[in-house]
This record gives sequence, C-alpha cells and structure tokens, in this order.
Amino acid sequence: MAEPSGAGDSIPLDGPGLDMAAGEEFLQEVFRILLEEGVRKSTDVTQKVCDWKEPQELRELLDLELRSDGEGRERLLQRCRDVLRFSVRTGALPVHTSAHRSAAPGQPSASQFSPAQTPCGTAPPASARLFPGHPRFFNQLFSGLDHHALAGRFLTETLNTSPYTYEVAPVLVLMEEQVLATLRELVGWSSGDGIFAPGGSISNMLAMNVARFWRFPESRSRGNWDLPRLGLFASQESHYSILKGAALLGIGTDNVHLVRTDERGKMIPEELEKEIQRVKAEGSEPLFVCATSGTTVLGAFDPLDAIADICARHGLWLHVDAAWGGSALLSPRLRHLLAGIHRADSVTWNPHKLLMVGLQCSAFLLRDSSGLLQRCHGVGASYLFQRDKFYDVSLDTGDKSPQCGRRADGLKLWILWKAVGTKGLAQRVERAFGATRYLLEQVKRREGFQLVMEPEFINLCFWFIPPSLRGQESSPEFWDKLGKVAPAIKEKMIRRGSMMVGYQPHGSQVNFFRQIITNPAVTRQDLDFFLDEIQELGWDL
Amino acid sequence: MAEPSGAGDSIPLDGPGLDMAAGEEFLQEVFRILLEEGVRKSTDVTQKVCDWKEPQELRELLDLELRSDGEGRERLLQRCRDVLRFSVRTGALPVHTSAHRSAAPGQPSASQFSPAQTPCGTAPPASARLFPGHPRFFNQLFSGLDHHALAGRFLTETLNTSPYTYEVAPVLVLMEEQVLATLRELVGWSSGDGIFAPGGSISNMLAMNVARFWRFPESRSRGNWDLPRLGLFASQESHYSILKGAALLGIGTDNVHLVRTDERGKMIPEELEKEIQRVKAEGSEPLFVCATSGTTVLGAFDPLDAIADICARHGLWLHVDAAWGGSALLSPRLRHLLAGIHRADSVTWNPHKLLMVGLQCSAFLLRDSSGLLQRCHGVGASYLFQRDKFYDVSLDTGDKSPQCGRRADGLKLWILWKAVGTKGLAQRVERAFGATRYLLEQVKRREGFQLVMEPEFINLCFWFIPPSLRGQESSPEFWDKLGKVAPAIKEKMIRRGSMMVGYQPHGSQVNFFRQIITNPAVTRQDLDFFLDEIQELGWDL
Repeated sequence: MAEPSGAGDSIPLDGPGLDMAAGEEFLQEVFRILLEEGVRKSTDVTQKVCDWKEPQELRELLDLELRSDGEGRERLLQRCRDVLRFSVRTGALPVHTSAHRSAAPGQPSASQFSPAQTPCGTAPPASARLFPGHPRFFNQLFSGLDHHALAGRFLTETLNTSPYTYEVAPVLVLMEEQVLATLRELVGWSSGDGIFAPGGSISNMLAMNVARFWRFPESRSRGNWDLPRLGLFASQESHYSILKGAALLGIGTDNVHLVRTDERGKMIPEELEKEIQRVKAEGSEPLFVCATSGTTVLGAFDPLDAIADICARHGLWLHVDAAWGGSALLSPRLRHLLAGIHRADSVTWNPHKLLMVGLQCSAFLLRDSSGLLQRCHGVGASYLFQRDKFYDVSLDTGDKSPQCGRRADGLKLWILWKAVGTKGLAQRVERAFGATRYLLEQVKRREGFQLVMEPEFINLCFWFIPPSLRGQESSPEFWDKLGKVAPAIKEKMIRRGSMMVGYQPHGSQVNFFRQIITNPAVTRQDLDFFLDEIQELGWDL
Repeated sequence: MAEPSGAGDSIPLDGPGLDMAAGEEFLQEVFRILLEEGVRKSTDVTQKVCDWKEPQELRELLDLELRSDGEGRERLLQRCRDVLRFSVRTGALPVHTSAHRSAAPGQPSASQFSPAQTPCGTAPPASARLFPGHPRFFNQLFSGLDHHALAGRFLTETLNTSPYTYEVAPVLVLMEEQVLATLRELVGWSSGDGIFAPGGSISNMLAMNVARFWRFPESRSRGNWDLPRLGLFASQESHYSILKGAALLGIGTDNVHLVRTDERGKMIPEELEKEIQRVKAEGSEPLFVCATSGTTVLGAFDPLDAIADICARHGLWLHVDAAWGGSALLSPRLRHLLAGIHRADSVTWNPHKLLMVGLQCSAFLLRDSSGLLQRCHGVGASYLFQRDKFYDVSLDTGDKSPQCGRRADGLKLWILWKAVGTKGLAQRVERAFGATRYLLEQVKRREGFQLVMEPEFINLCFWFIPPSLRGQESSPEFWDKLGKVAPAIKEKMIRRGSMMVGYQPHGSQVNFFRQIITNPAVTRQDLDFFLDEIQELGWDL
C-alpha cells in the first residue's frame, strides 16, 4: 500500500485539493470566450462553417498529446479558443457573405448576396448572433442552437447527476416524469411509461428488447436458445439501428426482414403482410414491426394505421421509430403525418433533432403501464435501489434502463418548453416545413437542379446536374458521372468552409444531396445562398 | 399538406425565427445565476446538501406542467434558480457548518466545527467556493466538480455535435483518438482500439458483444440460435450490468455464472476454474470472463494475473470492468492494484467517476487492432459513412458503436488532462486514497463504529452501532435491529440536508454505510463532520 495504514496525518487534507478561486475565474473566462468569439466572428464576413484541416495538420495544431504536467491558464484558454475555431459550427455563428466565393462563369457573384443588397436581408445586429446555429450547416438531422435549451444544458452539466433515484436527483426525476408524460399525451396516450435513452438507436433497441420480453418473459433469464427463431420487420428505408440492435440482441441481422417501400419510401402494408406470412412459413416467429415516421434519407412516413391493423391481426409488437418525425406531432397542421401512432406499443422520439434541444435527448415511450419496462430491465441492485427508503421508490426509475448512471436529458427540453410553449415548438416545426417548401419551389425553378422526389416532410433530396452533363440524361455514362458530382461539390464546400450538406447514394440512385432545414435561424437568404453555392461549386464539373 | 406547395413566399423567412439578442442575454443571465447562487450560498452557513421535499410538494413548487404558451424571461430565470435550489448538490457548494445541527446528548456540538474554531479549518475565501462539489455528498461513485472539466462540458454543449465523422467533428474525433490512446497506454497497450460509451454498463455490454462476435462471427447475422449455449463469468461482487447485458444480448441472466469471492470481495481463481469446468460439463460453451477492478460496494480488485492465466488456458475473452478502479492506473503508487490488466482483451474505465470529469465519460478499450470493433458493430450506412469522401475515412469512427449520434465525451477529459497533467490526476487519486486512510483511522478509534472490512481502495464500509445496541452483539435480534439503523440515519440526514452517503445490505450483511471520497475539495474537517453527524443522528436510535 502506498500509505501506511496509520498515516492519515501525513496527508494534506487541511484544505481543499483544488484551487477554487482560480477554477471559478477560469470558468468565467471560458464563458467570456464563448460570447466574444461569437460576437467577433459574427461580424467577420470571412467566417466559415468549418475551417478545414487535414487530420495530421489538425493534430499538430491542437498539440493533442497528454503529458505529465499541467499547463497554465493562458495556454488552456487558448486551447478552448482553438476547439471553437477548428470545430464545425453546427451551433455557432451565422454569416451572410463569404469572402471565399469567386464568381463562376455565368453565375451570380457573391456580392449579390451581401446583407446590404439582398432584398430580404435584414441581418440581425452583430451582438445578437451568438449560438443560433450556423444557418449553413445542413449536414445532419440536428442543427441550430436554442439559447434556452443551451442554458438547460449548462444547468445539467453543473448539477452533474444521474436521474436514477429521487434522492440524488429530485428535480430531474420529476421533470423527466413530466416531459415523458407530455410527449406521451402528444402520441395520444393518457397513461404509459418511458425513459430517456442515449440516442434513438438505443431507444429502438430497448423497444426490441421489451417486445421480446413481453412475448417471452423467460428469455430474460434463459436467453434466446429456448425461443423460436424470431422475426423482426422494418422497411427498406428504416434506420440502420434496427440491424445493429438485432445483432446486439442476439437475434441476428438475417432475422430483420426489410419490407419493400413504395416510390415515396413508405412501407407497403401488403408487402409487410407477405413477409410475415413468408417468415411464418419458414418456421420463424414474427415478433416485432418497426414502422418509421420520418425516414432518415427521404423523410417518409409509413402508413401507421394499416400497419397497426396487420400487427393486431398477428399479435405483433408495433414500434414506431419517430426519432426524426415525432416532432411533427406538435403541429396541428402536420400531425396527420403520424395518424395512427396511438396504436403503437412503443415509440422512439428524439427532440434533439427537430426541436434543437441538443445532443442527446431521445425519449423511449411505452403504452404499457403495467411495469413491463421495469420488469424487463430491472435487477434491483441493493446498493442503489434500496427498498427501505423513506419515500415512494417508484420514483427511482433508474432500474427501467439497461444503463446505470444516465444523463439527465429531460431538463433542457423542459426549460425550452417552458420558454416557448407547445405553440412555439409547433411554430418551429412549421417554419422548418415552410423553409423546405420555399426551397422546393426554387429547386424546381432553377436549371440544372433535379428533384429525387417531392418531399413529404423536410428532407429535400435533389441532384445538381452540371452544365457539362445537361442534355445527356440518356447517355450510358450519365448516372455514373452524376454520382461523382455531389462528393466533388461537398469536398469543395468543406475546403471553402462555406456550408455543409449531406449526400448519399440510395438504392439504385446515385449520390444526391439531402437538404434538411431545422434551424429557425435560417432565412430565405440562406436558402438562396445554398442553391447559389451548389451551382457555383458544381459549375465546371 | 399545411402549406400549399407553391406557398414559399407566404412563410416568414425574411429574418431568423429566433430572437437571438434576447437569447444571448438569457444565457448570460443563467451563467450569472450559476455564479451568484454559488457565491451567495457558499457564505450562507445554513446551506444544505439537499433541500428535501416530498415529491408532491416539489411537483407543485416547480410548477412542472408544460403548457401551450411560453413564459417570460424573469419567470424562466426563476425556474433556473429553482432547479439549482431544489437539486442535490453533488457539484455545488461546500459549507463548513450546519445551522441545523443540535448537539445530541454526550456529543460534540456543531459549533465546535465552525471554520473559525476547527484546528485544521483554513476555509478558502467565499468567492472561491463555486462548483467544487459539495464535500458532504458521498452518495455515489461520482461527486465533486472540476472547473476545467466543467469548462470542457460547456464547450461540448455549445459545439453540439456527434463525433461519428471527421467532417462534422474534426477536433472532437482527434481528441477522442488521443484520449483513448493515452488510456490504453496506461493499461499497458501500445496499440488497440476503443470508443466512448454512454456509461460503464453499456461499455460492459459492448465487451460481451465483441467477445461473442470474436468467437462466433456468424452470430451477428444469425443470432444466438446456431450457437451453443454460452457461459459468462463474473464475480459475486461484479456490477449488475453484467446481468443486464446478458439479458439484453439474448444470452440470459441464467448463463451468467457468479463466481465466489473471498472475504475481501475478490474473485477466487480456483472457483472460476471450477465454474468453467462445471459449465462445460453441462454442455455450455464458456466465452467471457469479467474481472472487476474496484467493485461497486467493497472496492475489491480481482486478481487479474491468475484470472488471465485461466482465460488463456480455456481460450476465453477476458474483460476487466475497471469502471471504478481504472483511475488507480494513473498513480505509480496504486497501479499495482490492477497488476495484469494488460493481459485483458477489453477494459471498461469511467473517468467520470474518480476523475470527476462529469457524467458521462466511459471508455471502452480493446487490445485488438485488427478492426474487430468495427466489424462487430458496423453496418456502413451510406448516408453517413460514405466511402467516397476526400479524407481518411478511418477517422469516421461512429460505426464502431451501436449508437448513431453519440456525445463527445472525450473533450472534457482532454481539457482536464491538459490542465493538471497525468501527475495532477495521479495526485487526486492519491488524495482520495489518503482521505480514506484518515477516515479509516477515525472509524477505528471511535466507539460505536464497526468496519465491515479493511478497505483496499477508497470504499470504506462500516456500521454505526447506536448506544442502545452496544454490547448486545450476541443477542438474537442484534443484526435485525442494526439493519434498520443506516436507513434511519440516512432519512434524518436527507431531511436535515446535512450530507448524503450511501448504504446497502450486502450478502448476509445487514445495511451498512459505504463512504466514498473522490472529491479533492473534501478536507479533514469534512471527514470529522461526517462521522460526528452519523454519531449524532444515530445517537438515540
């Protein structure tokens, strides 16, 4: 042993082992950097979405190595500035011009889009431009930054606790309870259960696990060996976490049956019925259907009522992966997209996507109110979930999760909700929808842009056809060549740092752009810029 | 559709849909509240660890309901204050007296422990007392708050991105790579792999899944049905996540074989050998051994070298759950506790526990450098992990995880490490160890305190025997009565708000306290207070 057992007196315990004054001052400086970098950069027209560096160069710039000795305050503050500088601004600073643009032949020049000249350009004051989310980051299903949610995250980080028991997290446990109940109400359930999970993938896996336990409670103790081979069903457009979950749960990816979709990316109910019959005929036991409300690439909504009918007929668990589309339930004008969701047995809904709550906030919701979730996951560790506590231990919800320590993901959503109300959240969803409609019109009007399909939601998928390929749509190499355009434009935009948008091939379709607009800071001007920039970057390909 | 498809012009996209000036101002106010509440409360001697409220009362105080309309700035700021006020101060304010104490008969009075009077009491200045972690929160394996790590968390929340691809999180991906490599070096591996997971439970589950895939790669696609019944082994003192993981993975809790431990809580290698033989004889296939370095309750370290010998002989995957004890590797004086860990196939290590990085930071480390982790979990979603990117896509590490979006848990540890260096981290671990030695001596000296066992690490387990039970150790009701003492004292301390510490029954042992000191802000004075308080609260039981 390092310390002889009677050596208590030799240990410097007389004062705290942290320099707390210096620590607080450091924290204040970091907060100042967050503010100042924002203010300064928002007035700097050369500011980029990302400042692209090759990995090796960035490794050296950041001086990543972890050493034996600590560093001084100034060096550490510079490190914080560097983290901001070289990160991608998914939640950073909007800018409305790019000094890096140079007009391509025949194309509008950047200067046409400077704030002073654009017809719609009433740029907010510079001092107001911190943290709204870079309006030209469109790369993922999350983007934008809400100040109230961010304040909630700072509170959460400061509290640093796990909402597994009421005694250590009374406020957070009750907020989680409230937020989950409100989300369930929007699904259409007056009772039920749920838990926050670290992301939609894990939520989907919990659904699969609860479904297995519901049908075969003995699987929990005995594993899959005594069960018939199980069959899981999801559409061809479903999220990849269904495959990952099947692998993790010992069910196997071969036992996930991907049901054909229509031309809009929606599951075809008749095909689901056929798959179920086929799997039964092969001797497997259908268990679980995952319908998707808002697919990742196309933004398609599966027909829930028709799927629920099939599940009811066969006695299958219906899970709805509404990680992306669930937030449409907030809007009276859009919730029809999820008609029938109240018939689901479980739902995944990620407010960290469309509602900009911040990574992560994924609700796993259950219709069951008999304690299925607790019975499925609980093991009742006696050091944490003591039954002889003096309060209502049903508030010790931690055992409902396969996690032990768990982040308090409800607080930030609760604060945001209190700030803008259900109406305010609905308006954001509708604004995102409206922005997509505007962009859709522009894409249809502009030469060289071709829709992959009419969007149902806020995923706008399209190709840009460079002048060199126009009119050659019937040539044998056309699609091969077109498939190389999106990656080439993406590389150019990242190196330039002007914006970020995702692309992917999809089924037989070659690489196309998928534009997602969730950030309320995005204006018409940003949307015009987006299309101009693609046009410019792809002009000479 | 809500918007007719040509209605782009009717949507108010001319300016941002967020009031960004007000948003920034709100964020600044919240930060001010975090600081001011700290400063004010740290000078207020009546400040409690927790301000206990019954759930229904707290629900009403917080006005939890989520409504249609948003609320004004002042109301929201008050809500932030309330969140701080009614939460448990795991990472809040140290105080050195409690106005709530009243001297029990024959006990020292609270006033003896006021800062001015204690012999060791050089209280830091009031302005320095924000966020160091309440030195009287001892309830979980995490406590305390480091300013540098907290600054890292504020940065992480502001960046709001997922380190799944280099393009969206270049800085965070490289930091994660560096931190994982450094942790692996401390384990004793010059190469390997790894990923951050949302908590130690999930890390342990990843280990089980990778082990299954390593031995039976076909299980990924075909599930468990074609495999022999698998056997998993962990000690009786292992973390409950091994059971939860076995259930989730379709292996079943019955197939987790809990190996007997010695009187210190360490796995007995000969018993492991016997269990493996027994399981084989029953026709199951031993696969995976989880050794624990730092058990949850007793802080025991399994003998890794002897266990590694057995695993090597039988060809089993050796996982070390060092979620709690891994940080001892930082100290040259303590790392002998984990001798042999370099022989493991995988390791779980949670810097969010002993290193106070903040929830969550759990590293899942692998010795394999052949890409096993990627092959086990990867499905190569084409919308995220495009292979035709222009940079080295081996940096797109997201597919190594069963998660999709994933929090950037490496940054906060990287910043902390840069701030205090490996040496500074080692000092913290050693200080925690030293504080435990001091407390151990005091417990041995004081009448009425009885050790459960000599601590090997920093879990100090003991009973308090009230005067009414002393001398009755041989009476038939003694243990029954003693088992009710810890819950009664715990209730009193929570209602008083003076401190928090965990208790549990364990095997045949009735409820005892488990004291964990990780917080460097804890002083000798706090440790004396801790024992005084238990003594006072338990005096008349």
